[in-house]
Amino acid sequence: MGGDHGPKVILPALVKVIERRPDVRFLIYGRDDAVRPVLDQLPRLAGVSEFVHCEVAVRMDDKPSQALRHGRWKSSMWKAVEAVKNGHADVCISAGNTGALMAMSKFCLRTMASIDRPAIAALWPTVRGESVVLDVGATIGADAHQLIDFAILGAAMARALLALDRPTVGLLNVGVEEIKGQEEVKEAGLLLREANLKSMDYRGFVEGDDLGKGTVDVVVTEGFAGNIALKTAEGTAKQIGEYLRAAMSRTLMARIGYLFAKSAFDRLREKMDVRKVNGGVFLGLNGIVVKSHGGTDDEGFAAAIELGYDMVRNRLIEKIKSDLDTFHARQPQLQAEIPAAAGDGDE
Amino acid sequence: MGGDHGPKVILPALVKVIERRPDVRFLIYGRDDAVRPVLDQLPRLAGVSEFVHCEVAVRMDDKPSQALRHGRWKSSMWKAVEAVKNGHADVCISAGNTGALMAMSKFCLRTMASIDRPAIAALWPTVRGESVVLDVGATIGADAHQLIDFAILGAAMARALLALDRPTVGLLNVGVEEIKGQEEVKEAGLLLREANLKSMDYRGFVEGDDLGKGTVDVVVTEGFAGNIALKTAEGTAKQIGEYLRAAMSRTLMARIGYLFAKSAFDRLREKMDVRKVNGGVFLGLNGIVVKSHGGTDDEGFAAAIELGYDMVRNRLIEKIKSDLDTFHARQPQLQAEIPAAAGDGDE
Repeated sequence: MGGDHGPKVILPALVKVIERRPDVRFLIYGRDDAVRPVLDQLPRLAGVSEFVHCEVAVRMDDKPSQALRHGRWKSSMWKAVEAVKNGHADVCISAGNTGALMAMSKFCLRTMASIDRPAIAALWPTVRGESVVLDVGATIGADAHQLIDFAILGAAMARALLALDRPTVGLLNVGVEEIKGQEEVKEAGLLLREANLKSMDYRGFVEGDDLGKGTVDVVVTEGFAGNIALKTAEGTAKQIGEYLRAAMSRTLMARIGYLFAKSAFDRLREKMDVRKVNGGVFLGLNGIVVKSHGGTDDEGFAAAIELGYDMVRNRLIEKIKSDLDTFHARQPQLQAEIPAAAGDGDE
Repeated sequence: MGGDHGPKVILPALVKVIERRPDVRFLIYGRDDAVRPVLDQLPRLAGVSEFVHCEVAVRMDDKPSQALRHGRWKSSMWKAVEAVKNGHADVCISAGNTGALMAMSKFCLRTMASIDRPAIAALWPTVRGESVVLDVGATIGADAHQLIDFAILGAAMARALLALDRPTVGLLNVGVEEIKGQEEVKEAGLLLREANLKSMDYRGFVEGDDLGKGTVDVVVTEGFAGNIALKTAEGTAKQIGEYLRAAMSRTLMARIGYLFAKSAFDRLREKMDVRKVNGGVFLGLNGIVVKSHGGTDDEGFAAAIELGYDMVRNRLIEKIKSDLDTFHARQPQLQAEIPAAAGDGDE
C-alpha cells in the first residue's frame, strides 16, 4: 500500500522479479479494493502469490507513534513484518513510511541479542563497484560499541551481497588536522583494530570522498552524518546530471555530438541509475526488512525485492549471528561493559 | 611556503590576480631561498609586493600544537596572520597546514566578542549559483548558540560575496520521520525563527540534497557532518567525471560525439571546476583568513585570493560585527545564557 504510487507500481515490480528469480513466492498485504483490481490483471503473479486483505494501511505522513497506535496487529505493514517473525516470509519489503516501518520492525522483530540499536544500510555505487554504508538514518549519534555493531552488521551484509570473504571496513571521519574526529569514532577504531576479526579487514578511518572511490567495502558512521552524506551524494549526482543535460542541448554541435555518443550517454545514465541501488536494509533485527524509496518505479521496487532475496539466499541473518557470537566470545570484557538496559534483544 | 608546490605555484597566482584586481598589493612571507628565485622572474609582481624573509616555515604535517610551539612569533604563517592583526594586511591567504593555520589564527586574531568558536565556510556550487556552507571542518559538534553564530557569520558572508540583501538560511538536518534531528539543531531552529533577523531570511531545515539544489543561500551545520558532506560531494563529482570519461572513450561513435560536443564538455568541465570555488574562509575571528586547498594550481590559488579580496572590499568584518551586535541587542536573554567562559573574544 506504500510509496507514492501503491499497488500500481508495486505489483508490476513483482512480475519483473518472477522473471529473474523464478523460485520467488509472494505474500501480498493490502486493502482489497486497491490490490485486487491490479492483481487480477496479472495472472502470472497471482499464481505465485497469496493476497491477504488488511483493512488498515499506514499513511505516508503518519508519525511512527501514530502508526503503531493505529496499525499495530492489523495494518498491512504490520502483517508484512509479522510474516517474517512467524517464518511465513523470509524478508519484508515496503515502499511505505520509513519511520513507521522502522518502529514496527523494532517492535515486532526485536533487535538481536547484544545489538543495542538497528541501523539502515545502503548499497553505495562506487568507481570500484558497490560498498555497504551504514547507518544512513536510523539513529542520531552512536557510541563506540554501536559503531562496532554497525561494522559487524555491515561486514556480514557485504559478505552476503558482494561475494567477499573478508570485506574491508572503514570508519567515516574527518581528516582535518586540528581535530582528530569524534571520540566515539576514535574509540571504535582502537577496539576494531585490537579485535582483528576474521569477518572483516578493518582499515582505519575514511573520509567523505572515499565513499565514491570505494576505498573500503563497508563504511561505518552514525546516522546523522550518514544520512547527510547519502543525500548530498544523491543531490550532487542530480546536479551534475542537470549541468550535463544543459550543456548537451545548448548548441547544435553539442546536440549532434549527443546523437553520436548516445549509447555512451545511455551507459552513463545506467551507471548513475539510482533505481538499481534502491533499498535501505534494516540491520540488527531478528529478520530482514528492506525499505524501498517511496517514489521509485517498478524497476526500482524490483531491485529492492531482489536485494532482500539475495540476502536471504546468502543467509545474512545466520552470518550476522555467528559474527556477533564470535566477536563477543572473544571480547567478553566488551560485552560486560554494555549496560544491560541498553539492549532490548529478545534472546 | 605552504601547499604541495610552494612559491612555484603561489607566486604565479599572484600575477594572475594583479591582472584582474589591479589595485591589489601583496605582502609575501617565506624563506628567502625558496621565494627569491621565483619572485626575481616576475618583475611585475615584485613591483606591487613586499617580501619578508622568515627563517621558519610550518610543515604540512606539523600538528597544530607543534606548529604553535616552533612557529609562533616567527614563522611565515604566523607573520602573515599577524599582518592582518596589525592592520598591515586586509586578509591573509595560505595554502599551508589547515590545523596550524586555524590554531595560529585563533591565537593571534582571537575570536570576535560573543563568538565562541570560529567556523570554516565554503562556497558551494549549486544549480542556482553558489551557496555558503559552514562549518566544514573547524569544529566537531556545535550547540544551538554556536549554530546561530554560524548562521549570522554565514549570512554576512553571503551578503558580502553574493550580492544579496537578505540571504536565505537553512539548518542542515535529516528528514527521516522517526528521528527529528539533533536537539541542538531543533533548538537553533526555534531561536532563529523567533529572532526573525533583518540580516537573514531563516527558512528552516534543509537536507543533504538541498546543498546541490541551492535551496537556500546559507547552509548551517556543525563541522563533522559539514566536512563529510563537502568531501562526499567532491568525491561524487569526481566519480561521475570518471564514469563520463570512461563512457566517452569506449566506442568510436562516442569519441566522434565527444569531438562534436567538445565545447559543451568544456563548459561542463568549467562548471565542475573545483579550483574556482577554492578557499575555506575562517569566520568569527577579528580578521579574515582564507585557506586554499594545498594541492591547487595557480588558477585555484588566485581564486582563493580573489575570494579574500572581494570579502574585504565588501566589508565582511563590519557586516558581521554589526549583525552580531543587532542580534545580541535584541536577544539579551540569549547572551546571558552563554557562559562567560565559553567566549575568548578580546573585546
